[in-house]
Amino acid sequence: MTEIVSEASVTSPPQGKIMLVGIGPGSFAQMTHRAVEAIAEADVVIGYVTYIKLVADLLEGKEVIRKGMTEELDRAVHALESAQAGKKVALISSGDAGVYGMAGPTYEVLFQAGWTPDSGVPVEIVPGTSAINACASLVGAPLTHDFCSISLSDLLTPWPVIARRLEAAAAADFVVALYNPKSGRRTQQIEQAQYLFLRHRSPQTPVAVVKSAYRRRQAIVFTTLDKMSDCDIGMLSTVLIGNSNTFVRDGLMVTPRGYANKYDMQGDGSAREGEKRGRSLSTGLLGWMANLHADFAEGISLTQLAQLHHLPADYLELVLRTPLEEEETPGADEAEA
Amino acid sequence: MTEIVSEASVTSPPQGKIMLVGIGPGSFAQMTHRAVEAIAEADVVIGYVTYIKLVADLLEGKEVIRKGMTEELDRAVHALESAQAGKKVALISSGDAGVYGMAGPTYEVLFQAGWTPDSGVPVEIVPGTSAINACASLVGAPLTHDFCSISLSDLLTPWPVIARRLEAAAAADFVVALYNPKSGRRTQQIEQAQYLFLRHRSPQTPVAVVKSAYRRRQAIVFTTLDKMSDCDIGMLSTVLIGNSNTFVRDGLMVTPRGYANKYDMQGDGSAREGEKRGRSLSTGLLGWMANLHADFAEGISLTQLAQLHHLPADYLELVLRTPLEEEETPGADEAEA
Repeated sequence: MTEIVSEASVTSPPQGKIMLVGIGPGSFAQMTHRAVEAIAEADVVIGYVTYIKLVADLLEGKEVIRKGMTEELDRAVHALESAQAGKKVALISSGDAGVYGMAGPTYEVLFQAGWTPDSGVPVEIVPGTSAINACASLVGAPLTHDFCSISLSDLLTPWPVIARRLEAAAAADFVVALYNPKSGRRTQQIEQAQYLFLRHRSPQTPVAVVKSAYRRRQAIVFTTLDKMSDCDIGMLSTVLIGNSNTFVRDGLMVTPRGYANKYDMQGDGSAREGEKRGRSLSTGLLGWMANLHADFAEGISLTQLAQLHHLPADYLELVLRTPLEEEETPGADEAEA
Repeated sequence: MTEIVSEASVTSPPQGKIMLVGIGPGSFAQMTHRAVEAIAEADVVIGYVTYIKLVADLLEGKEVIRKGMTEELDRAVHALESAQAGKKVALISSGDAGVYGMAGPTYEVLFQAGWTPDSGVPVEIVPGTSAINACASLVGAPLTHDFCSISLSDLLTPWPVIARRLEAAAAADFVVALYNPKSGRRTQQIEQAQYLFLRHRSPQTPVAVVKSAYRRRQAIVFTTLDKMSDCDIGMLSTVLIGNSNTFVRDGLMVTPRGYANKYDMQGDGSAREGEKRGRSLSTGLLGWMANLHADFAEGISLTQLAQLHHLPADYLELVLRTPLEEEETPGADEAEA
């Protein structure tokens, strides 16, 4: 058998690629090295006009495709076509490419087009500093405890889904970042969010409204939950709502991590009575389970316990069925705090 | 009156500074320019031993203070003392400095010590790519919709607080990242988290366990909610749990943004009947309010509506008291999708 190999099949065609690049809040200093490198590597850069402007200095000699805000799917289609033609494409998102950014829509379009990871167009996601982190860094340390990110935009999400998330996040005392809080058309969403939060949180809960973080028109306003919807809030704002422990002092919004639960912060910093450095709190899982077992043994009913702890009765039943173990089993690796 | 000015008060003392630096997941490529610059600027670099190793190449000629995991408050005290002595100090955190990082504890220590922003020691927070974003970028696009970050560590947080957050996040269909999911000592937390999620989500819900993202021993495992707690999970793992729409295809975990709610994704991409490009969904706030008003007018009770929508009755009452407005009021700026 004679092997016939044509020239074309020996010379490998130029390899296209799609890079989904999170450029961070917008200043060059806050971009990662890989984000800058990915844009440098690209033949084609595609993005929303505003984001293209933010990286204008990096675009010399490149094909630049500016798209409008409604054109996420078009951007992804364009990226795929260019990559299939052998070009390296950077699809840019502000913040992180995965958070309300282009990563999701692009994979949706790629799958729709029959793309697979082996089909000759590799995809790289370049993560970045998301708006929640960028905004938080400018107001203090509001995210030190568990937090949620919720978009108030109902352009792709039914409102009851959003409202249920607001209600749940407010009730469970999460720090919350609201993305897309308000626009020319969408003005009632932020008011209804405020109502749902006020059902569970003090009117004095600290709120920060951060606009254009790390950009030329950066503006930060501190307010409280009861005045939140009166603030100047727009499409470029992120709203950060504190949890029940968040405080503002000297112009800084801080959520305590919980050291005061364990250590004498006013005195010499030693562990409080009943607490041990490097161990779970006395109200941590094992200590709490022991108390729950004791309360149940003393005759407090499952229904009463469920009400007391604001937790489902069937979950408490599971906990009561679980045998208690000593906390002092030898631990291999850990001691967070 | 003779003015006596001593030499010492004319020559300004060296100005100390505290920089709280988020170094991202751990590789140089994923650090921001400002993070590298801040470490370069520093006389003293303080951090947990593991994080110090990650930036070893940047530390030549600097005073380096390696602290253990239980010593967050010590690190902050040390930073303040060095800064008061005129040194520039970089306190490093992996990921973002504000997310379970050093920003919060440092401000707590500074306030405790009587520090104010005007007291001669400026503080800068350098945000970075948080673990949730870094891990997400490696598994696909799991964060494309609203998400929560919850730490399972009960070393500073009472377990019922954590359990309530798990329950709320599961019920409201958030994508969830679990930080500090498990350790040598803390093994039951992840099992109880799994139980709380299974109350609301399908056993087949996609889960990704990402270990040491962007580091030498990076490892990614895809699993499902019902098998989650059987996985190899440790202190360096982040667990990503999808929402009810998240899917895995070709080894990628993707949460749809919601384009399919509005556009014909199988066909020509045109808007579905009743939907308009650049406008809220027909089930967005104003459309939903109109339906709610109509249902109530038809005699469906508030209690029934509350059950139907899984929302509090008093909130629905507020919505029913709010006059309906036309969606087509002129919008100034927006059109997200």
